[in-house]
Amino acid sequence: MRIDIITVVPELLQSPFEVSILKRAIEKGIVEVHTHNLRDWSTNAYRQIDDYQFGGGAGMVMMIEPIDKCITELKAERDYDEIIYMTPDGKTFNQHTANELSLKENIIILCGHYKGVDQRVRDHFITREISVGDFVLSGGELAAALVCDAIIRLIPGVLGNETSALTDSFQDNLLAPPIYTRPAEYKGWTVPEILTSGNTGKIEEWREDQAYKRTKERRPDLLE
Amino acid sequence: MRIDIITVVPELLQSPFEVSILKRAIEKGIVEVHTHNLRDWSTNAYRQIDDYQFGGGAGMVMMIEPIDKCITELKAERDYDEIIYMTPDGKTFNQHTANELSLKENIIILCGHYKGVDQRVRDHFITREISVGDFVLSGGELAAALVCDAIIRLIPGVLGNETSALTDSFQDNLLAPPIYTRPAEYKGWTVPEILTSGNTGKIEEWREDQAYKRTKERRPDLLE
Repeated sequence: MRIDIITVVPELLQSPFEVSILKRAIEKGIVEVHTHNLRDWSTNAYRQIDDYQFGGGAGMVMMIEPIDKCITELKAERDYDEIIYMTPDGKTFNQHTANELSLKENIIILCGHYKGVDQRVRDHFITREISVGDFVLSGGELAAALVCDAIIRLIPGVLGNETSALTDSFQDNLLAPPIYTRPAEYKGWTVPEILTSGNTGKIEEWREDQAYKRTKERRPDLLE
Repeated sequence: MRIDIITVVPELLQSPFEVSILKRAIEKGIVEVHTHNLRDWSTNAYRQIDDYQFGGGAGMVMMIEPIDKCITELKAERDYDEIIYMTPDGKTFNQHTANELSLKENIIILCGHYKGVDQRVRDHFITREISVGDFVLSGGELAAALVCDAIIRLIPGVLGNETSALTDSFQDNLLAPPIYTRPAEYKGWTVPEILTSGNTGKIEEWREDQAYKRTKERRPDLLE
């Protein structure tokens, strides 16, 4: 899988891909992540990529031309399955979308910054608009990193142990059950006895029951 | 405001706070962000902070003792308004929570990693559990960075122009209207005439109308 991220602050996207699981996925050659500084496609000497809003109002708008040039250049090199725009008014990202995107071959992610992009970019170039939630960020970069993380860890071979991803929250519309590790007692707080019983059948039953209870209590909407 | 982030991969949190708005907020002294490597509170020579699950199963669990020691040390230095745990089964983060947290003085954010933390940490130390959405990440670090970004930009003095944050999506339960910038025509695609009319009253009306229409079409749930 290849991911091209278009951004005005490429520095922001450095550390997320240089450590942990994402780094290993890149080193293993399972995924390629390329960050593109939008200013490299600016059409003037000031490397300008934003301008004032038509009609007035606070906040700068990312211009269409540098984005068009960047996307066109990428598309000339290979086919892309999706050109995604990160924006708070996009479709809310979830595990279902993560699963779907993890199967794609090449995707472009355009990070909104400032007040966002010129609407014509959205109308003519973007195939999918994604929001990571109902809140506003200073830019789409962290949101893009989040989406990459959620997608990449699902690609076979990335996680050390496939079964770990399958038992995560949301994969079966249930939250994960409580987990415990050593010591069995800490400051008088003990782990549920069942977990140290060695009875794997009963433990499985208890976990399913706990997962269901937790989901019902915290996120009844997932059970509908 | 002071934010203490407890993590097993502090490197991951480097670039988000070294650029853009978060960097400026830190430089202006409006916010302090301290990242703590949980391994520094490990109780053995291997700097171990995770262990196998009681009851078996894939995925490691973050142990209670290093977390207890780290939190206890921080709490001895100052009072904290909240000790937040980032976890996919927490309460979904939104702009309302961002507004609320932006008023706090000191907060701790504990990033879940691997399969998550020992349940006793959640039961005895955590005051609030936050999820950034219905998807699973390789760790809570990017989620924590996201939360910090959403919070910090709301603190007065951080954004250059206060009015910019107030007209963002979600602050009034409406998505933002379409925005446009120069050139007025690009490849035959023009901006709506109203925006170049100079009639500020009509422009305001058009924007409200567009914001409402977009919200109704994309996120009718916000209008309920």
